[in-house]
Amino acid sequence: MVDKNNLTLLTDFYELTMANGYFEADMKDDIAYFDCFFRDVPDDGGFAIFAGLNEIIDYMENLKFSEEDIEFLRRKGGMSERFLEYLKDFKFECDVWAIPEGTPIFPGEPILTVRGPVMQAQFVETMILLLVNHESLIATKANRIVRAAQGRAIMEFGSRRAHGASAAIYGARAAYIGGCIGTACTVCERDMGIKALGTMAHSWVQMFPDEYTAFKKYAEIYPENCVLLVDTYNVLKSGVPAAIRVFKEMKPQKMGIRIDSGDVSYLTKKARKMLDEAGLQECTIAVSNSLDEYIIRDVILEGACIDSFGVGERLITAKSSPVFGGVYKLCALEKDGELIPKMKISENVGKITNPGFKTLYRLFDLDTDRAIADLITLDDEPEPTGEDMEIFDPQNIWKHKTVTNYYAKNLRVPIFEKGKLVYDKPSIEEIRAYCLKQVDSLWEEIKRFENPQTYYVDLSEKLWEMKQDLLNAHNR
Amino acid sequence: MVDKNNLTLLTDFYELTMANGYFEADMKDDIAYFDCFFRDVPDDGGFAIFAGLNEIIDYMENLKFSEEDIEFLRRKGGMSERFLEYLKDFKFECDVWAIPEGTPIFPGEPILTVRGPVMQAQFVETMILLLVNHESLIATKANRIVRAAQGRAIMEFGSRRAHGASAAIYGARAAYIGGCIGTACTVCERDMGIKALGTMAHSWVQMFPDEYTAFKKYAEIYPENCVLLVDTYNVLKSGVPAAIRVFKEMKPQKMGIRIDSGDVSYLTKKARKMLDEAGLQECTIAVSNSLDEYIIRDVILEGACIDSFGVGERLITAKSSPVFGGVYKLCALEKDGELIPKMKISENVGKITNPGFKTLYRLFDLDTDRAIADLITLDDEPEPTGEDMEIFDPQNIWKHKTVTNYYAKNLRVPIFEKGKLVYDKPSIEEIRAYCLKQVDSLWEEIKRFENPQTYYVDLSEKLWEMKQDLLNAHNR
Repeated sequence: MVDKNNLTLLTDFYELTMANGYFEADMKDDIAYFDCFFRDVPDDGGFAIFAGLNEIIDYMENLKFSEEDIEFLRRKGGMSERFLEYLKDFKFECDVWAIPEGTPIFPGEPILTVRGPVMQAQFVETMILLLVNHESLIATKANRIVRAAQGRAIMEFGSRRAHGASAAIYGARAAYIGGCIGTACTVCERDMGIKALGTMAHSWVQMFPDEYTAFKKYAEIYPENCVLLVDTYNVLKSGVPAAIRVFKEMKPQKMGIRIDSGDVSYLTKKARKMLDEAGLQECTIAVSNSLDEYIIRDVILEGACIDSFGVGERLITAKSSPVFGGVYKLCALEKDGELIPKMKISENVGKITNPGFKTLYRLFDLDTDRAIADLITLDDEPEPTGEDMEIFDPQNIWKHKTVTNYYAKNLRVPIFEKGKLVYDKPSIEEIRAYCLKQVDSLWEEIKRFENPQTYYVDLSEKLWEMKQDLLNAHNR
Repeated sequence: MVDKNNLTLLTDFYELTMANGYFEADMKDDIAYFDCFFRDVPDDGGFAIFAGLNEIIDYMENLKFSEEDIEFLRRKGGMSERFLEYLKDFKFECDVWAIPEGTPIFPGEPILTVRGPVMQAQFVETMILLLVNHESLIATKANRIVRAAQGRAIMEFGSRRAHGASAAIYGARAAYIGGCIGTACTVCERDMGIKALGTMAHSWVQMFPDEYTAFKKYAEIYPENCVLLVDTYNVLKSGVPAAIRVFKEMKPQKMGIRIDSGDVSYLTKKARKMLDEAGLQECTIAVSNSLDEYIIRDVILEGACIDSFGVGERLITAKSSPVFGGVYKLCALEKDGELIPKMKISENVGKITNPGFKTLYRLFDLDTDRAIADLITLDDEPEPTGEDMEIFDPQNIWKHKTVTNYYAKNLRVPIFEKGKLVYDKPSIEEIRAYCLKQVDSLWEEIKRFENPQTYYVDLSEKLWEMKQDLLNAHNR
């Protein structure tokens, strides 16, 4: 775990007032089910990438109230002494199901469910949402940027514009899951094995009398990997010529230039020509100036000669759409062994939640392995067998289609059983490879940046009827 | 310090390649000056609020390379053994000047300067920028939102949408500096004394057979402060009537309702009327649904009856403008006791930096105590005495005005002297009070949300001439 802080009290205070409330109302062990799901895809995209589970697991495994925490709550007041005593031995004992990190996800799907004593299952809300919302936001954005680059490398360069230390570290993690090849953030290599990248800033060049001297000294010290920043004074008049001179004199093993300002399309075409004419075909060109998926798509269309992109602030803050709207809602209770579905009513039909304890299937085409549709069912319904199935849009039920020639995959796996971790955590490399493969399984129409096709997410008939019954009961 | 992680390697990898480079080039102790400044005010506002210094101080005081860090760098390769040995005894020995947190700042101003061995002064770049950019961003946004509320309370409610744990914690800190009255994030009260607030979520209401039962139980447990969430089913038909019934039966000491969905302007006017007719004039109304400075300004204009606002995602992510563009640039070197000014050239005139070791004055009107203009001078120039002064826009020198009847305040204070902290850190309450007072000193025209007047930031004649000389030398 990178984060060594005690994060138990990184929680909205109302989780604690409610916890004490359930305790005092003798309801603390009532069994409740909470679903985590999200409502809208950032940037109006066609899908998002789920991330943050690894940190949720760390959080849940380390969840305890220190003496300092309890003493603080006592001083703050309002909570019963009996409750504070109870917190001393607090242990997380819930069941948790989730889908693996790196999975493409769609609005309304139960991506994580917690079942357990209501006091506990409620309490973990803030950190679950914080972690899912942050990492899924960045993984989703990174994947858009990676797709725009059409196979060229994307490096995450945003630490200095990240919203605090964890945003830099876990943002880099999420960006890697989404397909970046590495990060500038050094600690991510030490703690997570994500390759840390970087060579020089403008100040290196300015510390020397001229670019040639600065580049030559760098090539002396780093003959294996010599990437020179050529835009401190003038890219084409001084930067590239000085770099070429040094490359020819010093013959570093790997050589590259980086351009961090100006019009990268124009400059890289000119620089490529200069490098090629000097016989330096193997010299790579990296660029890094306020890039995002739109600019990268466009400069590639314009014929820019770029081997890799360093993407900073627009990735690490998901600048164009910096909020991931994951929510955490009560969906069922157990009373005397019976499951009672719960639903949040809203005047906005899209905000009405799906009741009950559910699971989530993805249907893949048997011939192409492409994802056809997702199906949310109640947990006790049988798994789809592959027989022809009529699916329909739950909000526009006249929109339907028949799914044939498919196999179904249950996307959710057990993570905790009564507080015990039962999930074998994949490595970051496995998560990244899985993510890229799953994204490949989506149709191109879903992956369009603007105005993508809506992917089918169906409710089982039984779940749909349960929802209608609860709605009718409410309106009666 | 809330953050207990070892953050030394939370640094762009190029800071390390350059550090090893300076070491190997026998330049590590060359004395360099770096300025931190920012270029554009977020949301096209008229000014920003400086924050993050407290965390920068913690970072610098704790800066050291652990054995684990050094072992990692050795494994990663590329750095000399001599350098790695040197890191074992690395100690931060720079001089640092900065302006106090909570100060209104303007583009181009040297808000923080580091002087010292280039290896060290360069190395701290990433974390300085990360901390200044994050906290200044949120303090600036919070202050806009607080001003929009015209004296009504703003509560920071964004942890669940924050970009990771530090974004929640230090975002709440910055929001408090900007004028919020508290936060939902509990750990901020434990560690920083910022009041943690919150009562109940919709799930509390859903756990009971009906709202009346849920509210009554809550009022039993929390008779001192009973704020009831009234929008789980229907605000006006069921939520407010149930709350009124409970308030009348239970007579809590403080009573309030919170509305988290629907049109808050319409609903609060109706709810206020119902509460008043029930004799509950003292019952407060809080709202909390995707708010920002624009919506708050508008609902107040519409006559909404609101006592306090809970602001979440749009504050904690600064959604409309989530990047604070602080940069860190070399501005001078010392060679043989002489100061050599340095400047970053750019084709974009606005991006050309100010050379030399500088300081920053704010000129206040002697009669009104309002801020008239800021003046950047070279550090060795005499302090303005109050005599009439001609100031001009450094980019449009035909724009000038004469400043009279003023006093000048040097905004920068020494923070570290040769690595030793010499600054008496103010409390968070003092910073918040100072911030609000300083914002009061700005003219209303500067504070307008859209298209504000540009505040005067002047360069001294000596500094302006130095800049012109360097530009001319470059173009020759």
